[in-house]
Amino acid sequence: MKRVMLVVAYDGTGYCGWQVQPNAVTVEGVLNQKLSELLHEDIKVTGASRTDSGVHALGNVAVFDTESRIPGEKFSYALNQRLPDDIRIQKSMEVEPDFHPRHCKCWKEYEYHIFNAEFANPIERLYSYFVYKKLNIEAMKQAAAHLIGEHDFKSFCSTAAQTETTVRTIYGIDVESQGNSIVIKVRGNGFLYNMVRIIAGTLVQVGLGFYEPDRVKEMLEAKDRTAAGPTAPACGLRLNEIFYNVDKNCG
Amino acid sequence: MKRVMLVVAYDGTGYCGWQVQPNAVTVEGVLNQKLSELLHEDIKVTGASRTDSGVHALGNVAVFDTESRIPGEKFSYALNQRLPDDIRIQKSMEVEPDFHPRHCKCWKEYEYHIFNAEFANPIERLYSYFVYKKLNIEAMKQAAAHLIGEHDFKSFCSTAAQTETTVRTIYGIDVESQGNSIVIKVRGNGFLYNMVRIIAGTLVQVGLGFYEPDRVKEMLEAKDRTAAGPTAPACGLRLNEIFYNVDKNCG
Repeated sequence: MKRVMLVVAYDGTGYCGWQVQPNAVTVEGVLNQKLSELLHEDIKVTGASRTDSGVHALGNVAVFDTESRIPGEKFSYALNQRLPDDIRIQKSMEVEPDFHPRHCKCWKEYEYHIFNAEFANPIERLYSYFVYKKLNIEAMKQAAAHLIGEHDFKSFCSTAAQTETTVRTIYGIDVESQGNSIVIKVRGNGFLYNMVRIIAGTLVQVGLGFYEPDRVKEMLEAKDRTAAGPTAPACGLRLNEIFYNVDKNCG
Repeated sequence: MKRVMLVVAYDGTGYCGWQVQPNAVTVEGVLNQKLSELLHEDIKVTGASRTDSGVHALGNVAVFDTESRIPGEKFSYALNQRLPDDIRIQKSMEVEPDFHPRHCKCWKEYEYHIFNAEFANPIERLYSYFVYKKLNIEAMKQAAAHLIGEHDFKSFCSTAAQTETTVRTIYGIDVESQGNSIVIKVRGNGFLYNMVRIIAGTLVQVGLGFYEPDRVKEMLEAKDRTAAGPTAPACGLRLNEIFYNVDKNCG
């Protein structure tokens, strides 16, 4: 028995998110099916980030246990031959049997893409949030700076979520202009349900002038979901990468 | 009666190209249908570039004649409300009645996108050509330089095409690396059938080391389609922009 880690990229457009659900096509479900077919075992993967319907990933992480003698690094090639072209394994490797993608310490990087122009660009439509009013990027940068550090992000968490604590640490937020696109890159040690999309929705409201940048401080202090801005659409979000401290203990 | 020009962006993934065909969904066909519905006239647009199935555009150009009193610049808003989200008008304006998007002098800019990494990126798959072997960009740049200027591009034209002359002028070709993407940007006064895709396919062969960069000179001299490289896939191609000399005479 060995444990294999997969780095998984997918276009979330055609999936009802990561997590297996009855009567819905999910990324986890497709991986379970294709791995089980490949290995003639009943494989169930465990994912790091259970991304929502329509959210994309360049580097989500999953593990599974198998009796197979295929070397860890060969699974990427074998699986990619069977997967639909909107899911592609970027890397595979054998890991320690106690490595768990959600319980082991890590930090994650997400990107949120906004297309800001008078008219939408059809080839960006599946991967960005279209905003036709001109956004003030400097104001968005000022607002984002208030979110950096350790904070209680309860105002930036969808109420459906139940977690022990809503305190998280954001290491950095970059708001960058790339042509007509605005990219918000967020790195942190963990993210609450819908947290990056609520951050993006709030920064868009700031960029439109509905809120002053400093208002974000009050939003954090309120610890109330209704204090922050709306949840921006799923298609603008992509999980870039998850970094594990693989040299040290999992805990 | 007035003539209106449209700048049209589209995701070519779902279309059998620009030009109207029986029993196929085309960009021209959708524009004709939506304009006719909007204006209660039988509208037939005339396009500048009859892009192939799967090719994208940020700025194709079309004109139509109408009795409508809607101001030229308002058509973009009215049409976008009716169009599917993979077609978006970027601009509309009234033009002179003798303005013809194919007969008036212009230059065009195309971009060809290659995704060059060990594994494909699902969110780039519809808009780039995936090449997993490492490409030598310097060699591609050297090869591209031979194509700049006025040449007989007969070797870079699909044999199906019938034109009076196969002499064209390329003003510039840039081969740029952007992360894992390689973008070939080509500007010229006219392009033969499949010309940019054959240029891209040839440059990929050079980047893979199958041809020396100087071989492109011999390919031009051969004036024979079989001398050049393969036609690269349609999805990597996008028509960026068409520039008309609108201050002067159309001819």
